[in-house]
Amino acid sequence: MIAILKKDANRAAVDHLLSWIEKKGLQAHVSQGENELIVGLVGDTTRIDPFLLESMDIVERVQRVSEPFKKANRKFHPMDTVVDCGHGVKIGGDHFQVIAGPCSVEGENLIRIARRVKAAGATMLRGGAYKPRTSPYAYQGMGAAGLDLLMEAGTELDMPVVTEIMDPRDVQLFLDKGVDVMQIGARNAQNFPLLKEVGKTSTPVLLKRGMAESIDELLMAAEYIMSEGNPNVILCERGIRTFETRTRNTFDLNAVPVLRYLSHLPVVADPSHATGYTRYVEPMALAATAAGAHGLEIEVHDAPDQAWSDGAQALTPDMFDDCMRRIALIRAAIEPEGGECA
Amino acid sequence: MIAILKKDANRAAVDHLLSWIEKKGLQAHVSQGENELIVGLVGDTTRIDPFLLESMDIVERVQRVSEPFKKANRKFHPMDTVVDCGHGVKIGGDHFQVIAGPCSVEGENLIRIARRVKAAGATMLRGGAYKPRTSPYAYQGMGAAGLDLLMEAGTELDMPVVTEIMDPRDVQLFLDKGVDVMQIGARNAQNFPLLKEVGKTSTPVLLKRGMAESIDELLMAAEYIMSEGNPNVILCERGIRTFETRTRNTFDLNAVPVLRYLSHLPVVADPSHATGYTRYVEPMALAATAAGAHGLEIEVHDAPDQAWSDGAQALTPDMFDDCMRRIALIRAAIEPEGGECA
Amino acid sequence: MIAILKKDANRAAVDHLLSWIEKKGLQAHVSQGENELIVGLVGDTTRIDPFLLESMDIVERVQRVSEPFKKANRKFHPMDTVVDCGHGVKIGGDHFQVIAGPCSVEGENLIRIARRVKAAGATMLRGGAYKPRTSPYAYQGMGAAGLDLLMEAGTELDMPVVTEIMDPRDVQLFLDKGVDVMQIGARNAQNFPLLKEVGKTSTPVLLKRGMAESIDELLMAAEYIMSEGNPNVILCERGIRTFETRTRNTFDLNAVPVLRYLSHLPVVADPSHATGYTRYVEPMALAATAAGAHGLEIEVHDAPDQAWSDGAQALTPDMFDDCMRRIALIRAAIEPEGGECA
Amino acid sequence: MIAILKKDANRAAVDHLLSWIEKKGLQAHVSQGENELIVGLVGDTTRIDPFLLESMDIVERVQRVSEPFKKANRKFHPMDTVVDCGHGVKIGGDHFQVIAGPCSVEGENLIRIARRVKAAGATMLRGGAYKPRTSPYAYQGMGAAGLDLLMEAGTELDMPVVTEIMDPRDVQLFLDKGVDVMQIGARNAQNFPLLKEVGKTSTPVLLKRGMAESIDELLMAAEYIMSEGNPNVILCERGIRTFETRTRNTFDLNAVPVLRYLSHLPVVADPSHATGYTRYVEPMALAATAAGAHGLEIEVHDAPDQAWSDGAQALTPDMFDDCMRRIALIRAAIEPEGGECA
Repeated sequence: MIAILKKDANRAAVDHLLSWIEKKGLQAHVSQGENELIVGLVGDTTRIDPFLLESMDIVERVQRVSEPFKKANRKFHPMDTVVDCGHGVKIGGDHFQVIAGPCSVEGENLIRIARRVKAAGATMLRGGAYKPRTSPYAYQGMGAAGLDLLMEAGTELDMPVVTEIMDPRDVQLFLDKGVDVMQIGARNAQNFPLLKEVGKTSTPVLLKRGMAESIDELLMAAEYIMSEGNPNVILCERGIRTFETRTRNTFDLNAVPVLRYLSHLPVVADPSHATGYTRYVEPMALAATAAGAHGLEIEVHDAPDQAWSDGAQALTPDMFDDCMRRIALIRAAIEPEGGECA
Repeated sequence: MIAILKKDANRAAVDHLLSWIEKKGLQAHVSQGENELIVGLVGDTTRIDPFLLESMDIVERVQRVSEPFKKANRKFHPMDTVVDCGHGVKIGGDHFQVIAGPCSVEGENLIRIARRVKAAGATMLRGGAYKPRTSPYAYQGMGAAGLDLLMEAGTELDMPVVTEIMDPRDVQLFLDKGVDVMQIGARNAQNFPLLKEVGKTSTPVLLKRGMAESIDELLMAAEYIMSEGNPNVILCERGIRTFETRTRNTFDLNAVPVLRYLSHLPVVADPSHATGYTRYVEPMALAATAAGAHGLEIEVHDAPDQAWSDGAQALTPDMFDDCMRRIALIRAAIEPEGGECA
Repeated sequence: MIAILKKDANRAAVDHLLSWIEKKGLQAHVSQGENELIVGLVGDTTRIDPFLLESMDIVERVQRVSEPFKKANRKFHPMDTVVDCGHGVKIGGDHFQVIAGPCSVEGENLIRIARRVKAAGATMLRGGAYKPRTSPYAYQGMGAAGLDLLMEAGTELDMPVVTEIMDPRDVQLFLDKGVDVMQIGARNAQNFPLLKEVGKTSTPVLLKRGMAESIDELLMAAEYIMSEGNPNVILCERGIRTFETRTRNTFDLNAVPVLRYLSHLPVVADPSHATGYTRYVEPMALAATAAGAHGLEIEVHDAPDQAWSDGAQALTPDMFDDCMRRIALIRAAIEPEGGECA
Repeated sequence: MIAILKKDANRAAVDHLLSWIEKKGLQAHVSQGENELIVGLVGDTTRIDPFLLESMDIVERVQRVSEPFKKANRKFHPMDTVVDCGHGVKIGGDHFQVIAGPCSVEGENLIRIARRVKAAGATMLRGGAYKPRTSPYAYQGMGAAGLDLLMEAGTELDMPVVTEIMDPRDVQLFLDKGVDVMQIGARNAQNFPLLKEVGKTSTPVLLKRGMAESIDELLMAAEYIMSEGNPNVILCERGIRTFETRTRNTFDLNAVPVLRYLSHLPVVADPSHATGYTRYVEPMALAATAAGAHGLEIEVHDAPDQAWSDGAQALTPDMFDDCMRRIALIRAAIEPEGGECA
């Protein structure tokens, strides 16, 4: 971290700053610019608040030199991480996977939908048993019974299951049921007790970006999980909130190459939530694939107008068949030497 | 809820829609506009997803008629709610309160700071024992020992204590310690398990707006707490996230009169987080007061450059003295007939 | 347009509203919902301000039924518009084009760069002679001399030239020079005098989306041009402004399928400005192609670190060669029956 | 400007960078941090693109030391600028003014409204003769005839007139008519030809912030005007665009103290556009005053439901009377020693 001091910084104030830095357990390295003093903070600066430093009277600007995330940082881990999701399914590096299924687990239609998405080429099954809903009066999910239905479907079809966890008190239940991948949703993107709790397991975590979360903050959230000991984090871009109202969210696909540049973790994109409307899911699934995502998460329902949640953005199984065919063509186009799909 | 159908909607599709509405337990009331059919959905529409309805082929637009929040809605509760925070301190209606104290509980300085803010006119004491931090490597708070220090200070000074809760597993501890007001922070604004858990108590909840949370969603989050049985919700505007980087957040002070118009709940503003820099806290505290807030939450520290968190936005006790004098003048200006302060 | 009245609207106020509507030259069509009166405004509602209507005491909500754009609306013009840009180059429908060249026209390097982009498969040449710069002290462009260099290059290489116009007083000059496509930049996205002035010509206009411009407003800006008589409008998504700072802008690629759904006009995407960094241009160019854009605008410079502007986001000619090869593969993947490229 | 180099930067690349800096007419001042090389760019860095520098392979981060605005910068002009708007009305420093009048000049009602706002204490008259409207089919303003009506009212009431200019071709007309203050609206906030053209006059310019314009960019836009020779710039916060839809814009009142800190120019706030609804105008006018604005711009209409534009946010003259009384009380509260009003 570098602090650039104001031109008129007086000596006593500078000395105070230097001793403050040393009290924080860091070394201060002073260099004289043409017009201003530059103070480098050397050591572990992750505990230093740059806002505080910048608010000091003699400080003009503060600049981080190194990112505050370490374990998620490609600089310290140049090779792509490949996460093993169970059932022989790996994601990251050259491994591209499509996660599909209904928004909510609703009952017997789960297995019907699961068979269709498997037949179309999806390699992981999604479905929500615990649902975060804006309204307390909206359907909140089947809970543990939903987990059972998911696990049965995963077993029958030999597919890892991805399902959302919202409450740190549920982690043991998810482990007991054998959930393959725990998903953390946008609203819990900075729910630190939950991040820490899943970090204490070794189950892969699909971590969605929050609606107002910067890319750096997403990586810091991954760092929470990893710093507790769980390296199996899959990042997910699912749209951020902006002024545009023609779509449910604004799909920040730039985040795909940016995250791949900054981090070694697998990056998945969710065109269902990022658009909010069935008609835009396929083009944006193709776009995310072309942008270099390691995987996609897509909502599929066999009767969208009967869906308990998010029917507006579901593909039917037939639409999903078409979409998967085109995704495979895009994958072939960008990886002509043959990255493996599933 | 009103659905406006497309001009070319065919009869069979309209009939399908009408029977879909009835299966949801609602009545459909059809009226013929000049060019389009208008379908009113009559009954409890809180479980209807307007996005799904709008995604149907024959539907042009959907418009909610009534807000999805009920218990927080001024329409159904025209009088201002006054929340009793303990120690004889009430907020809402004509009762205006200033909550002040350090960002984090750090130790023995708490009581020194608390005495100063009390002397200056603050009526409630804040301090964080559990801290949500972007980095897992940053200071995470004193935990239960911090709660003890807070409660001791509150007892000594006869002030209710406001402190943040992040984990639903901590609710019983907060109750056991006798915390007067549980604060839910921006990052947990839509942490529904936490909202439900504090909703099962009768302890007042200071509910902060999320960084990308719309005003309607904030009211829906309040609804989560209220629908579990706890009517004692205090709303708090603390800045939203936008493109502007000269301040830590963008203080959406419009939210103060908008929330007062839409809801009967008390509305507090937090100029410390909403600006992020000490130098802007006083003018924005005055602005929030003039906008009609029922209270302010302000961070005060007697040695900001030694603060464990957020020193950049802390007022010193001397600055706070000045700020309180001006706040009182603004209060007098907007409530000349004499709304009571504290 | 539909106005939903409040439940307790009194008769006199309703009558006042109905007569107000009729004075505006519209018919009011009243229908009784279960709980509320619904008033349909029939006729040309483009001059009615929905905010005003909604602010009236008895009005609960207002909903537009039809979009305020007419000429740009696919509903009234279902077939894709194909714009003829000169030199035999058409864009829109099945015609996909890549516009490439340096950010600024700088001098003799223009023709060198132009030859390279043409050789790589670009079909239109870009270059700025008039540059909108945030700082008055930054380079402002070569002006008319730059137009001459561009036109010479276009003639030599038989390529239409795309260049930015910022001032309505320059339209005649652009016509005199024979500029093939006039580009309107993000900062002039709602510069209505400029939009009207280019609308009086028949020269194609490449209209970029403003940094805070909604999709509907972009289409209204196109409507300004079209309503003056010029139907040759090409829409361009170039990134919007959000809280994310790891990229120069947030590339709203959702806008590509949304604009294609709402409008018949060609839709181009600009991955250079939308990312701001060379390293992200290729993946996002591929993503935009996969999302269904009718074209791309890409900045290419043979010595980016010497570029007079925006070198940070330029591809070198060699990088552009690679990028074009992959773009062609993506095009083939999404249009297997063979949409024509150039 | 400071460039922090990557740890592994090789010598040849560093030398290339240093010579690049020198070719730009700057000096490079190298200092060795503990782990990284720091290069200071000394001289006039206003022409250096920090994005380009940051995109270079060996560069880790770039940090501006000094703001790119000079003439608008308080550092180089510590005293508040006071702008003389004519008719003896000054704004800035201790001079606080209220600008009021209808959104659009519509005809004979202008003088009626003007008399009322003058009687209530407004000191400047606003009214739009040239109107930027999202729709080409909406009312576009009376044009030159509207300017005549405005100037007549200003003369009769001895008030300076503020009115919007959208087209650089209109500057001479505005001068000929004797317009006292030319307003530049949000949509033209970065219309550089217009900024330059008004910069060539000495008429005061009220410069509104664009909907996605950062505070720094607003100051750079002021710099455009000032660098042409016109020092009479008044800055105006009128709301920015965010995800919140309960108000027309998000009023970034933080900008008031931030602009006062960074610049010496007068800062005005516009609660009419910043809220969009009559009911929120007064509380936000008071808030802006308390935040330290040098003035307010408020829309007043005697028959809002007949207004040709923006009736939804207009105060009636009676409401304006009340609002002005409260504004005076707030002014007295924050400036007890007696800043002068009008």
